[in-house]
Amino acid sequence: MKRARVAYGGAIHDASEVNGQLKLNDGRIVSENDVVWLPPIQPRTVFALGLNYADHANELAFKAPTEPLVFLKGPNTFIGHNGQTRRPSDVTYMHYECELAVIIGRKARNVKREEAYDYVKGYTVANDYALRDYLENYYRPNLRVKNRDTCTPIGPWLVDAEDVQDPMNLTLRTYVNGKITQEGTTSDMIFSIPDLIEYLSGFMTLNEGDVILTGTPKGSVDTAVGDEVVTEIEGIGRLVNTIVGDEAFSIAGSEN
Amino acid sequence: MKRARVAYGGAIHDASEVNGQLKLNDGRIVSENDVVWLPPIQPRTVFALGLNYADHANELAFKAPTEPLVFLKGPNTFIGHNGQTRRPSDVTYMHYECELAVIIGRKARNVKREEAYDYVKGYTVANDYALRDYLENYYRPNLRVKNRDTCTPIGPWLVDAEDVQDPMNLTLRTYVNGKITQEGTTSDMIFSIPDLIEYLSGFMTLNEGDVILTGTPKGSVDTAVGDEVVTEIEGIGRLVNTIVGDEAFSIAGSEN
Repeated sequence: MKRARVAYGGAIHDASEVNGQLKLNDGRIVSENDVVWLPPIQPRTVFALGLNYADHANELAFKAPTEPLVFLKGPNTFIGHNGQTRRPSDVTYMHYECELAVIIGRKARNVKREEAYDYVKGYTVANDYALRDYLENYYRPNLRVKNRDTCTPIGPWLVDAEDVQDPMNLTLRTYVNGKITQEGTTSDMIFSIPDLIEYLSGFMTLNEGDVILTGTPKGSVDTAVGDEVVTEIEGIGRLVNTIVGDEAFSIAGSEN
Repeated sequence: MKRARVAYGGAIHDASEVNGQLKLNDGRIVSENDVVWLPPIQPRTVFALGLNYADHANELAFKAPTEPLVFLKGPNTFIGHNGQTRRPSDVTYMHYECELAVIIGRKARNVKREEAYDYVKGYTVANDYALRDYLENYYRPNLRVKNRDTCTPIGPWLVDAEDVQDPMNLTLRTYVNGKITQEGTTSDMIFSIPDLIEYLSGFMTLNEGDVILTGTPKGSVDTAVGDEVVTEIEGIGRLVNTIVGDEAFSIAGSEN
């Protein structure tokens, strides 16, 4: 099943895809264009991988890591499908990153790779934008690179794990203004989904709803205000995002 | 006012200190020893500072940073006053770190340092244990150093900001098994509380309940299973923690 969270008719709804249509859990069928798509999950902890595709590490002139390079992201970064991401005025380089997001299904501690998929609830698509100006070296995927408000579109659907035959063999593609600019496959990950679950659960507890953003293949390029960026993963979903400028936001005073 | 969250008589309560006693919000006065102390806040985002006291950076043979070195922590790390922290069996060095925790009171974006204190709800004490085996360099305060379950005791009280005259001039002390092992003052921070709020809110939104762990002075040393570690900040609180071994936890199978 494909599951979503959407706002419609004054309320927030859990929803699912039924015969290609969007069905709210109260039974109503609604148009995908009439709802506001929210992130399909509300995680406690969001992990993200740096340089988990060898071709991408090479593209950035970094050595491929010998153990997973993992950092945390805050909930301020998430927005849903068809959302607007703010391109901060203090950056020169804002690169999209199409990534397979793994959603943890239950408490996991000391899980071996052979059993790792038993702990996966499902998958969705994320675009883990990077503001490269602030990327000093691969040891420091710091907050200013990876923790800006609205800079992690995610969704549209959480696709149940049982409906994804082989998550390690999916094609990822990104389109900027309709033109394909990135193409890769999850089979090129350096550390696979079972590797990552074994690694993380080996030293801390993973909880239901936690998210692992598994990294991006090569082909991540700069984007501009006004661009429509579509990140797509075979069988998982097609996530649409539009980039807007700082000027769309009121930043006078201290709140926005 | 000093505020707490405690479990007592089958339920979780907000509580406060009244005439030196612990008063539940339902009016009952209870003994501090009869409750389970919980972390006084349930944050969305927890920021932590690396090397924010020059003497501590020097002690670790690192240069003092020229901009705040900030990383995120997950909610799995928090436990309350009088709690047990698990010392993982895979580490040789587990150093306590007594830190002033700043609790954000309302949404903050592009706040200038002159107004920064208007956005502070209050303060508490944290012990941000570091597992030094995995500290490769100061750019990488990675998950295995700083994100273990139960390795961030916090509390007992959230002390309202209005009751803290000068948070940049408080004495911090740590006692291991009753013997003082760390002493410093918040006046030695490299980046002050207003600096940190200006810095963080300059590129992302801070939300009510977010926590900034402001770093630790020198004197952070190794601890062992069975140690009682007390971190104390003048006027804020005295946080007691006991270190227990892996063997206290069932780690057979995948859940614990």
